[in-house]
Amino acid sequence: FIQTLDMQIEALEKNGYEHFMLKEIHEQPTTIYDAMRGRISSKENRVTLRGLEEYANRFVRANRIIIVACGTSYHSGLIGEYLIEDLARIPVEVEYASEFRYRNPIINERDIVIALSQSGETADTMAALELAKSKGAMIYGIVNAVGSSIARLTDAGSYIHAGPEIGVASTKAFTGQVTVLTLLALSMAQKLSTISKTTFQTLVTELERIPEKVKECLSANDHIRYIAKEIKHHHNALYLGRGYNFPVALEGALKLKEISYIHAEGYPAAEMKHGPIALIDETMPVIVTATNRSAYEKIVSNVQEVLARKGMVIAVVNEGETAISAIANHVITVPNTEEQLSPLLSVIPLQLLSYHIAVELGRNVDQPRNLAKSVTVE
Amino acid sequence: FIQTLDMQIEALEKNGYEHFMLKEIHEQPTTIYDAMRGRISSKENRVTLRGLEEYANRFVRANRIIIVACGTSYHSGLIGEYLIEDLARIPVEVEYASEFRYRNPIINERDIVIALSQSGETADTMAALELAKSKGAMIYGIVNAVGSSIARLTDAGSYIHAGPEIGVASTKAFTGQVTVLTLLALSMAQKLSTISKTTFQTLVTELERIPEKVKECLSANDHIRYIAKEIKHHHNALYLGRGYNFPVALEGALKLKEISYIHAEGYPAAEMKHGPIALIDETMPVIVTATNRSAYEKIVSNVQEVLARKGMVIAVVNEGETAISAIANHVITVPNTEEQLSPLLSVIPLQLLSYHIAVELGRNVDQPRNLAKSVTVE
Repeated sequence: FIQTLDMQIEALEKNGYEHFMLKEIHEQPTTIYDAMRGRISSKENRVTLRGLEEYANRFVRANRIIIVACGTSYHSGLIGEYLIEDLARIPVEVEYASEFRYRNPIINERDIVIALSQSGETADTMAALELAKSKGAMIYGIVNAVGSSIARLTDAGSYIHAGPEIGVASTKAFTGQVTVLTLLALSMAQKLSTISKTTFQTLVTELERIPEKVKECLSANDHIRYIAKEIKHHHNALYLGRGYNFPVALEGALKLKEISYIHAEGYPAAEMKHGPIALIDETMPVIVTATNRSAYEKIVSNVQEVLARKGMVIAVVNEGETAISAIANHVITVPNTEEQLSPLLSVIPLQLLSYHIAVELGRNVDQPRNLAKSVTVE
Repeated sequence: FIQTLDMQIEALEKNGYEHFMLKEIHEQPTTIYDAMRGRISSKENRVTLRGLEEYANRFVRANRIIIVACGTSYHSGLIGEYLIEDLARIPVEVEYASEFRYRNPIINERDIVIALSQSGETADTMAALELAKSKGAMIYGIVNAVGSSIARLTDAGSYIHAGPEIGVASTKAFTGQVTVLTLLALSMAQKLSTISKTTFQTLVTELERIPEKVKECLSANDHIRYIAKEIKHHHNALYLGRGYNFPVALEGALKLKEISYIHAEGYPAAEMKHGPIALIDETMPVIVTATNRSAYEKIVSNVQEVLARKGMVIAVVNEGETAISAIANHVITVPNTEEQLSPLLSVIPLQLLSYHIAVELGRNVDQPRNLAKSVTVE
């Protein structure tokens, strides 16, 4: 009886989607909005994170910010590094929690340690926080699960309000983390006067438009399913990106690994010439995320190099892009946005691509082999 | 005529080895010694790097050290981060040169930027240095090629004295860079009194023994060739390591990619559970570098997890190790040493493994497809 009921509830909760992961991907216009709700107002030209306000003095005097995380959260941490350094001009170091905790890290009282964890129960991340706390650092949590261990352990923090994430491969928690990190960077930048009022206003106004633009990204679903059929039989894949899209490449590769068991690896695009390019031939699809404005012509030349070695290129580009669109094997467009916000859009097609490849291969998408939703053992 | 002569010279230069790469791997007892010669004395309890002495005031007052590099040099940079933070207690950030230069990095006059480059001509690294210089940072070069562009651009620096490296896949330059970074960390630690005199003396004495111990590592050559035959037909591989051996795992994977075109990827061992473990089945060899003393039981448990998923484990362990040796499919032993110096030994079998796999597959070891020895274009 219990089992039957469980399955009915599960079916209801999927809301008509075939898998929780697909449902959660499609929830992102709402969950990103929920991560901003009450915290941002373009009319009032304001970003307010309550946790940050409580400790505003610590944040503006911070010497260094250390972000500790594992897995997908590590990738949102890397985007946080780009955001905080770019906007608030405070040095950021992102560390794998498991590495940080075992290497007698340098932390002092002017440092802030930010932990990212969907579940708020990640064992290595908790241990890293306890170490940081014992060294006098202020610790800040960005978690999804309300009342979780990490939420209780930290001095302050912000929930991402993404709601329960059931699919083992994290999607809406990732964009929720990135949204909150964007708010944090903007709020710090405003307090530190490290960006102009115009830039602040532009970013805040644009951030409010992101949920609508994520919806547009999702409309590429059928086109992405078609591409998935074309590349599902490959055993390997490379994901390339520069700047804000480098962590997106890492995250896209991790999604594919997790649910399709295809060996995908992310790289900063310019590193390709220092080794990975040796792998490229007709059996190696290369997914290039090229929605950057800066160093754009460098990405075009990376695409040309891949094609010259007979690699297949799947490119994620902005609407209206022409140079890469003219030469890539497959093109997925996303709406234009400010470069700092581009990961919130460019990651969406990569989530969908992994999903459809895994479905095509008959994988257990929501519960991939060997993986647990949250890693509560060390 | 000219061609014939060239080939004779080439043959001579190979010194009886089948490839430059194999010759260069075997030169490492000498080249590591050359990187230390005149710079270290356990009798006098002294480490002296002339370039550092010139700017000793800047080094001891450094707020932060930023290491910029590409490819293999990026991996020695990561070991440098562990060394300098561990011994000299100054925060270190390692950046891909191509990422650093395009993202308006935070640099100030109390920062030191260290560039690592075998050729001294790497385009992205040079551009990163010019940017750092324009922001007032002191710039320090660790290069191999005497009189190269980076050597001339920097305020000070140390040559690694490895002699010309012909094989495209870097081997002796890597261990040369790690040796110089070890000297740099030790010298800074002595000036800053961040390690005890006993620890300093232990490390200096042990460092002098490393060339002899590298020779011992090389004696596993035939055993490693045998293992190479067992795994050459796999299309993928994972390299795992923790702490000082995490960058070694990245470097081992890069070597295999470069010359065998097998898709190998390095990971901090604890991150396996956050995604890559989904890839593991009987078709995925996992190379675990487990010569650490710290967190050792965690590595044993990582090995057990891989075996439970039917992965094949090739383990690099210390002489006398028993727990992993009892369960791994293949074991390669290296001599015991201090943990801070372990990368200089544990990387040797990984270099040999890549070499023998590539030879078995009939690859052009010294000139792999698509790769140039130094990347002088952006």
